[in-house]
Amino acid sequence: MQPVMTAQEIAGFLDREFPQIHAGGRAYSIDSVSSGEAVMRLAATDLHLRPGGTISGPSMMALADLAAYVVILAHIGPVALAVTTNFSINFLRKPEAGDLLGTCRLLKLGKRLAVVECGIAGAGEEELVAHATATYSVPPR
Amino acid sequence: MQPVMTAQEIAGFLDREFPQIHAGGRAYSIDSVSSGEAVMRLAATDLHLRPGGTISGPSMMALADLAAYVVILAHIGPVALAVTTNFSINFLRKPEAGDLLGTCRLLKLGKRLAVVECGIAGAGEEELVAHATATYSVPPR
Amino acid sequence: MQPVMTAQEIAGFLDREFPQIHAGGRAYSIDSVSSGEAVMRLAATDLHLRPGGTISGPSMMALADLAAYVVILAHIGPVALAVTTNFSINFLRKPEAGDLLGTCRLLKLGKRLAVVECGIAGAGEEELVAHATATYSVPPR
Amino acid sequence: MQPVMTAQEIAGFLDREFPQIHAGGRAYSIDSVSSGEAVMRLAATDLHLRPGGTISGPSMMALADLAAYVVILAHIGPVALAVTTNFSINFLRKPEAGDLLGTCRLLKLGKRLAVVECGIAGAGEEELVAHATATYSVPPR
Repeated sequence: MQPVMTAQEIAGFLDREFPQIHAGGRAYSIDSVSSGEAVMRLAATDLHLRPGGTISGPSMMALADLAAYVVILAHIGPVALAVTTNFSINFLRKPEAGDLLGTCRLLKLGKRLAVVECGIAGAGEEELVAHATATYSVPPR
Repeated sequence: MQPVMTAQEIAGFLDREFPQIHAGGRAYSIDSVSSGEAVMRLAATDLHLRPGGTISGPSMMALADLAAYVVILAHIGPVALAVTTNFSINFLRKPEAGDLLGTCRLLKLGKRLAVVECGIAGAGEEELVAHATATYSVPPR
Repeated sequence: MQPVMTAQEIAGFLDREFPQIHAGGRAYSIDSVSSGEAVMRLAATDLHLRPGGTISGPSMMALADLAAYVVILAHIGPVALAVTTNFSINFLRKPEAGDLLGTCRLLKLGKRLAVVECGIAGAGEEELVAHATATYSVPPR
Repeated sequence: MQPVMTAQEIAGFLDREFPQIHAGGRAYSIDSVSSGEAVMRLAATDLHLRPGGTISGPSMMALADLAAYVVILAHIGPVALAVTTNFSINFLRKPEAGDLLGTCRLLKLGKRLAVVECGIAGAGEEELVAHATATYSVPPR
C-alpha cells in the first residue's frame, strides 16, 4: 500500500479541517508517513499530564485515534468523512512526561472499513506504553 | 454496591488531584452518583467539536474514561492510584453539539480489577451515541 | 425495533445454514426473541468445560457471538452473509458448570453495521459472568 | 524475555490440564515458541467451518485465546491458573479452509497482568485474516 499524500499535505489538511486538535498549542504533529504506516508525535505539556508527571490516558487515546486517522488519510487521500467506529486500547506501562510517538500501521484498508494497529512508546524507547486498535468507516471512493 | 462518597466529595477530590481535566473550562461535571452507577456530563464547547458541530471521538472517550473513574472512586473511596488498563468504545451515532451524559455502571468491583460499562447519549435523549467498557486496576484496600 | 423472525424460524435457519454449531450435541439454543433483544442458552457439557468445572472462555465467546448473530438476524430477516467484524469480551467472574444465558441487545442496526451488547450469566443468576460487545457487517437490504 | 518451557513441555501440560481442547481431534498444535513469542496452528476440519468453506469466528477466537495462553505459559512456567480477563478481536479478511497460524507476542508480562497481541494468517500467507489482543490475570510468582 503506497501513500497518496505526504506528511506535509496531511498536516495542512488537518490544520484546515480539524483546527481544534491544536487548541492549547501544537502538541500533536506528524513525524513521518510511509508505506502502510504513519508516526505521530505528542509533545506532552501540562495539559496532557496527570499528577506525578505521567501522561493521561485520554491524551494517549487522542494520539492513537489521530495517528490512525492520519495513516488512513495518507492512503486514501483528503477525505474528511472517515469516522472512528471502534477504538480499543491497552495501557501497558506508565509513561514518563515528554514526547510520545504513536506508530500506526494499516491492518486492512477495505471498501468500507479500515483497521489500524498502533503502538505508543516514549520517543527513543523500545517498550510500548500503550497499544491500540481502531476501526474506521471510510467513504466510497 | 453502595457508594462511599457523594458527588460533591468526588468533585472536590478531582479538583485537587486531577486539575488538568478542567483546563479550558469546567466542561466535565458529575451529574449524580447512586448504587453501582455514576452519571457525568460533558457540556461541549468549541474545544470538543469537529467541523459540522459534532462532538469529537476523543472528547467522548475522555467522558467515558472519567465517568468510569468516578463510579469506581464512588464505591472504593478517595484513591488516586486507580488506573485504566483497558478501554474500548463503539461509536454508534453522530452526536449533535450540546451536552452529553455518560452513564457508567459497575459490572465488577474486585480486589484488583474493576470493570465498568458506559452508555453515552445526548442529554434528554434515549438513543446512545457511543458505548464503552473500561477495566481499571485498583489498589489493595 | 421489532423482530421479523420468530425464535423457531431462526433456529430452523441456523440448522440449515450453520449445522456445525450443533456438532457434539445441541448445546446452544434460542431461549427467546423480543424487541431489540435475544436470549441464547448454552447447556454446557464436558466439551465446554475447563478443569474444575468452570466453563471455558471460548465457549462463552461462541455463545455471545452466536447470540449477537441471532438478535441481528431476528431484526433483519434470514441473511447468511452478516459477518462479525469486531468482537470484544470481558470475563468478570468464574462461571459454575451448568446452563449459561447470553442476553444480547441491539445498540445499533444501521445500513452497513450492527452493534450488539451481550451480558452472560448463569441461568437464574443476576450477576454477569461475562460481558461482550460485537460489531457485524450487514448486507444491504 | 526468555521462555522457560519448550513447545513440547507446554503441549504435554495442555494435554494433562486442558484435554478438552483436543475434543474432536487434534486440530490445535504448537508450531513454535521463542523469545516473547509463540505460534499455534489450527488445522481446520469441518467442525471449524462455516458454509462456503470459511473458518468460523469462534474457531479463530479459540486459536488466539489458546495461543495467548501458550505464550504466557512459555514465559512464566506451568501454571494452570492464568485466566483471560479481556479478549478483543478484529476480523479482517475471509480465511480459506485449511491451516491457520496464530502468532502471539507478549506486549507486557507484569506481576498481575499479561497482555498479548496475536496475528492470525493462513499458513504461508502474509496478510492477516484476524488480529486480536488479550489480557490475562496471572498468579503471583
